[in-house]
Amino acid sequence: MIYLDNAATSLHKPECVINAITDALKHSGNSGRGTHSVCISAANTIFEARYRLASFFGASRPNNIAFTSNSTEALNTAISGLAEDGCHIITTEAEHNSVLRPLYRLEAERNVQLSFVRANSRGLINYEDFEHLITDKTRLIVTTHASNLTGNLFDIKKIADIAHKHNLIYIVDASQSAGSVPIDIKAFGTDVLCFTGHKSLLGPQGTGGLVIRDGVSIRPLKTGGTGVQSYSKTQPPEMPTRLEAGTLNTHGIAGLSAAIDYLNKTGVKKIHDREMQLTKLLYSGLKSINGVKIYGDFSMFENEKPNVDASEFPGKTPADILNPRLSRMPIVSFNIKDSDSSSISDILAESFDIASRPGAHCAPLMHKALGTVEQGAVRFSISYFNTEEEIYSAVDAVKEIANGI
Amino acid sequence: MIYLDNAATSLHKPECVINAITDALKHSGNSGRGTHSVCISAANTIFEARYRLASFFGASRPNNIAFTSNSTEALNTAISGLAEDGCHIITTEAEHNSVLRPLYRLEAERNVQLSFVRANSRGLINYEDFEHLITDKTRLIVTTHASNLTGNLFDIKKIADIAHKHNLIYIVDASQSAGSVPIDIKAFGTDVLCFTGHKSLLGPQGTGGLVIRDGVSIRPLKTGGTGVQSYSKTQPPEMPTRLEAGTLNTHGIAGLSAAIDYLNKTGVKKIHDREMQLTKLLYSGLKSINGVKIYGDFSMFENEKPNVDASEFPGKTPADILNPRLSRMPIVSFNIKDSDSSSISDILAESFDIASRPGAHCAPLMHKALGTVEQGAVRFSISYFNTEEEIYSAVDAVKEIANGI
Repeated sequence: MIYLDNAATSLHKPECVINAITDALKHSGNSGRGTHSVCISAANTIFEARYRLASFFGASRPNNIAFTSNSTEALNTAISGLAEDGCHIITTEAEHNSVLRPLYRLEAERNVQLSFVRANSRGLINYEDFEHLITDKTRLIVTTHASNLTGNLFDIKKIADIAHKHNLIYIVDASQSAGSVPIDIKAFGTDVLCFTGHKSLLGPQGTGGLVIRDGVSIRPLKTGGTGVQSYSKTQPPEMPTRLEAGTLNTHGIAGLSAAIDYLNKTGVKKIHDREMQLTKLLYSGLKSINGVKIYGDFSMFENEKPNVDASEFPGKTPADILNPRLSRMPIVSFNIKDSDSSSISDILAESFDIASRPGAHCAPLMHKALGTVEQGAVRFSISYFNTEEEIYSAVDAVKEIANGI
Repeated sequence: MIYLDNAATSLHKPECVINAITDALKHSGNSGRGTHSVCISAANTIFEARYRLASFFGASRPNNIAFTSNSTEALNTAISGLAEDGCHIITTEAEHNSVLRPLYRLEAERNVQLSFVRANSRGLINYEDFEHLITDKTRLIVTTHASNLTGNLFDIKKIADIAHKHNLIYIVDASQSAGSVPIDIKAFGTDVLCFTGHKSLLGPQGTGGLVIRDGVSIRPLKTGGTGVQSYSKTQPPEMPTRLEAGTLNTHGIAGLSAAIDYLNKTGVKKIHDREMQLTKLLYSGLKSINGVKIYGDFSMFENEKPNVDASEFPGKTPADILNPRLSRMPIVSFNIKDSDSSSISDILAESFDIASRPGAHCAPLMHKALGTVEQGAVRFSISYFNTEEEIYSAVDAVKEIANGI
């Protein structure tokens, strides 16, 4: 099978991830629930993961990482735990339902007002719009770092600067970007960054979390046992216990920790360059096919020679990689003529054994902006482990399908 | 190491659990997010787990199982999602903070009134108290199935009958009991049962869920992407999607599913009988030691000959096993004279390599009822995989420590 659905979940986990999980399943007790050796072993696993993630994301200390079961839980925690009743929140049309639905819920239940920065037909936003939408009641800005549909990156440093100029809190959904581009919350100035473990971070499902700037205090979504301060009626106020009620997923977190170690040893810049090289191949191949329409901004590829090796790739520095004019996510979404995206995806799976993702991708407003509500879109999403041959095969398959329609 | 901390998390996972997780890590995509083969494989894994759990707990259909990351999340979902602002809720003094803290939060934030059925110095409750505490505003009863501190089982059928006589919803915390005693929500009449995967169910951490009776509708704790109904602003109302926003932990759920299969093949009754046999050995040994005080109700052991093999054990039928007068959890909590429980637990770990759990066990009101707020208690908790030799060693160790104090 050719797996091009890495934006849904990465299929190829490094061997060290699987080994770390297996090892934890055999040797880990319950972290923070005692002093015997397997409790300590579990606590060490959790601490090491926190330490690695803090360093990976540029958090000022390990305790600024709170674990959740996925990005959706992290976003629910951050959005619901930072919003005030009756406040105003700004977001964008590029968001996933993991941002939109918690916001709509605040609108329905807590009298919160929402404003949306519009996306154009290429999925691009105008950063000045944030300034224009700010009111006296605005408390939060919530945006994705990268659209899960178009793969466009947003300049979150620019948005953070606007937020902080107006004393707003800025929450970033890094579900798609974490692991695929370098992230440093200090350099970006984001207040809360939500991540999931099972996509480009290459960890297992059931892991994710929040990376929180010093001084940002989030009301917990869940309360319960923590192994400490048992006689307090409320959740302990200290991070990370404040946001971590109940037994943590030590087994999964052991895998996520190994994945971060793998990413560090491989180098996120190297991973990104390789992914961009394959993305450019894929984009160049698809756009040459009659009847194929591609969504999103690929202008960074237009002025380059069609094939470059990874070392030549324009993302020369982390700053370049994060510049939306120079870089993007390894995602190419497209349609063939007016064919339903699900039909195309089914043919790709059944006749070519190629995994893609059709339909709405939980991004309803983005599809409205692109004009693809009815048709949806076929999404190819690449990982570091894909090969040139797989990309050529995918392009050939789309060509064959397009010729037959 | 002699591991007697199974009530915190079971350390010995069946080989099939580890294999299922490893296999899922290599072959599972994202369930419900496409139609290509590894998506379907993940969806099949999730469905099989749902099917097995529904059958295991006596739910009327697989869709009445909703997955969460642990019991705490399940309890937060059930309690917060079924309480009405200003309502009255009855619970007991035997509860874990995973029940108490969500309830205290409702009291502080949503004007909910709480009443507590008292526990006596042996941790027993008077079932008639539920009747006496019911008012016009009562909406929910929430109780544990078994105390995580004393190991006493509650007669949840009796509590369910009282709840339904008064049209109340009954939520059961089965964190300790699931996997160790047979559970059938139809036979018990419970409306919502919350479980965790990593204790007696022998699955991995990061898994758990709710078992819901037909017709009980719970407001979701989290909202977000579901892969279906992407254009709806609200979480889809259908179970289980309603309570499952975001990517599920397919890797962990694959392990939980294998664990349920293991429990079914082994037989929960056989597991319970074996655990009771070891518990009786442990209890008999500890109570004979000068200066040891044991907490909880062990009357079911008092009229029996001191050693019985598993086939002779009083739990002859599932109904007997669930009768609190005849049965209990494989937990023995104790103190030695007036020694701090943490010191004893440390000596057990450091000098004897025996894992126990001291302190408050996140059960503050239970410790108040037992009079052990300052001292805490040392908890030994047994699994199916412990041996007689380990129990004898634990008793010998406690004897040696007690003799030295």
